[in-house]
Amino acid sequence: MSKFLVQNLSNLVAYVPGEQPKKNEFIKLNTNENPYPPPGVDILSDVAINLNLYNDPNCTKLTNVFGKYYNLAEDEVIFGNGSDEILAFCYMAFCEKEIAFPNISYGFYSVYSELFGLAGQKIPLTSDFRINKEDYFNLGKTIIIANPNAPTGIVLSLEDIEDILKHNQNNIVIIDEAYADFGEVTCKKLINQYDNIVVVGTFSKSRNLAGARLGYAIANRDLIEDIKLIKNSFNPYNVNALTQALGVVSIEQDEYFKECVDKIVTERKRFISFLDELDFHTLPSSANFVFTKHNTMSGAELAQKLREHKILVRYFDKIGEYVRITIGTTSQMDYVRQKFIKIIKADV
Amino acid sequence: MSKFLVQNLSNLVAYVPGEQPKKNEFIKLNTNENPYPPPGVDILSDVAINLNLYNDPNCTKLTNVFGKYYNLAEDEVIFGNGSDEILAFCYMAFCEKEIAFPNISYGFYSVYSELFGLAGQKIPLTSDFRINKEDYFNLGKTIIIANPNAPTGIVLSLEDIEDILKHNQNNIVIIDEAYADFGEVTCKKLINQYDNIVVVGTFSKSRNLAGARLGYAIANRDLIEDIKLIKNSFNPYNVNALTQALGVVSIEQDEYFKECVDKIVTERKRFISFLDELDFHTLPSSANFVFTKHNTMSGAELAQKLREHKILVRYFDKIGEYVRITIGTTSQMDYVRQKFIKIIKADV
Repeated sequence: MSKFLVQNLSNLVAYVPGEQPKKNEFIKLNTNENPYPPPGVDILSDVAINLNLYNDPNCTKLTNVFGKYYNLAEDEVIFGNGSDEILAFCYMAFCEKEIAFPNISYGFYSVYSELFGLAGQKIPLTSDFRINKEDYFNLGKTIIIANPNAPTGIVLSLEDIEDILKHNQNNIVIIDEAYADFGEVTCKKLINQYDNIVVVGTFSKSRNLAGARLGYAIANRDLIEDIKLIKNSFNPYNVNALTQALGVVSIEQDEYFKECVDKIVTERKRFISFLDELDFHTLPSSANFVFTKHNTMSGAELAQKLREHKILVRYFDKIGEYVRITIGTTSQMDYVRQKFIKIIKADV
Repeated sequence: MSKFLVQNLSNLVAYVPGEQPKKNEFIKLNTNENPYPPPGVDILSDVAINLNLYNDPNCTKLTNVFGKYYNLAEDEVIFGNGSDEILAFCYMAFCEKEIAFPNISYGFYSVYSELFGLAGQKIPLTSDFRINKEDYFNLGKTIIIANPNAPTGIVLSLEDIEDILKHNQNNIVIIDEAYADFGEVTCKKLINQYDNIVVVGTFSKSRNLAGARLGYAIANRDLIEDIKLIKNSFNPYNVNALTQALGVVSIEQDEYFKECVDKIVTERKRFISFLDELDFHTLPSSANFVFTKHNTMSGAELAQKLREHKILVRYFDKIGEYVRITIGTTSQMDYVRQKFIKIIKADV
């Protein structure tokens, strides 16, 4: 730290991303990426020829294609350099002094509240890792909830979200749907019924584009106008030309999208059944990962033993003995199952 | 604007980027892009295959290649999603309450000061559009100066910058070198002599990559650590995998870089001589654009007439009768000269 850093940031602790190993030696199930490559990468050379010119700051084509697909007007969506940037813009636009979020959730929510000098109220989950909707009623501050939540994978119903919205009519409720495509619940349609909801999404998980950085917010036009004001006062050209083009292809190649999501959901169900048989307790997941703990083996030990077999998973030492395991391809999961059996049987 | 926007942003006015026309009908000399395409676009398909995985948040390869080229340690540089993002991070890291900058300069400096709730002191240029270094001595606040300045194109000498640094030892001085590659002056070497300088640069102008978004800051390791703290608390994966790869190619293909810059500098000199003969007054430019006004024809009229000939230039109604014209390819500038003669001669 230099002597020039502004004083109120002197205790800021940055978000710690999951490990991104340089080499391909691991089966990488630690950061909830999609195991399948993105579609349409052959278009990139054509786009790149014009990269000497600025990209379209309004993402016009992407907005049109995305809007048609999700039945949105063009002023009901805004794109960002990943949903992290969109979340940061939402904090800047809608958080005066305070924000509330589950105590176990995406780690960035509390980092943003530190960065922007807000009081962050962390609301405990229930003992079975669920969000109790009544805990979020009439808080008098902005609320952010990941749905499905991470790292639990547990989803709130649409009715529960609506109840939270109705009980916070003077405050914004941000619903972070990073993993929603792997489950049954999305709040996208609620933007026409409630003026206090912002739905945030990403192309990083279900749309195979983590390394291209594309996120979005969906809300009524007044709220999108507010977020655009921040975007255009921070980084107007935030989504580059290559990423905009890949986003368009992702929406257009809908069968590929659905096929990848289906494969992951099928694999998730299969993996949870497998874990059940091996004496694991796994939370009900609506995401592309599972949060699970063994009857006897600690999470730290399991993560370490998997690592020895070149399998990376995420272990959070603050959340019991659970590990979070991203769902990979069928062949990756075959290998994972094999190693799980080996590890658990050797231990028993 | 919604009723939910935080109160202190209710008067925020976003940056207005230059016009980005959807169609290719114009010779686009309004936003200081490089007229030549970037090198190495054939690598993109290979990179894209792995876009389902997160990009390297530390830009390791780019940092190494860039560091070797400019003789920097790996902790003396940080990359951003364009230099706009880097500038925003610098404001967040180093501006407690106030910032000072020239009253005529990059329009974003005052937008950031509004966005972050700072008092922005605008220091007038001299009557011939120069920065008077003494005006920046001992201000007791963070300072940002574009060098060369925009839209004037006029550069401060290294000695003048050093004088400003010496007279502000308790405050950060940010030197925005977006256009420095087109001139003779760069402050990159000063980072080892002064602990209060941050040099900001971009791949958008001299390195043909405006549409890919790649910017950087160079400073001593303590200052870079501060900016990294902001980056990792805002958007850790801010430079996507495709842009990182293109950045590496740009540095590696050094001959192409120098060739493009040389062509633009040669064209700039030729164009200024041409303008002299047509009774224009042009400021001495060290950038890839010229700032010029005619003896009799107003800037607004000139810009409008050029537009009718499908040539876009930038006219700022607040800065006298000058227009800013980006230097294009030789053949573009041949066409521009032809039209200038037509417009001016018809007027006389």
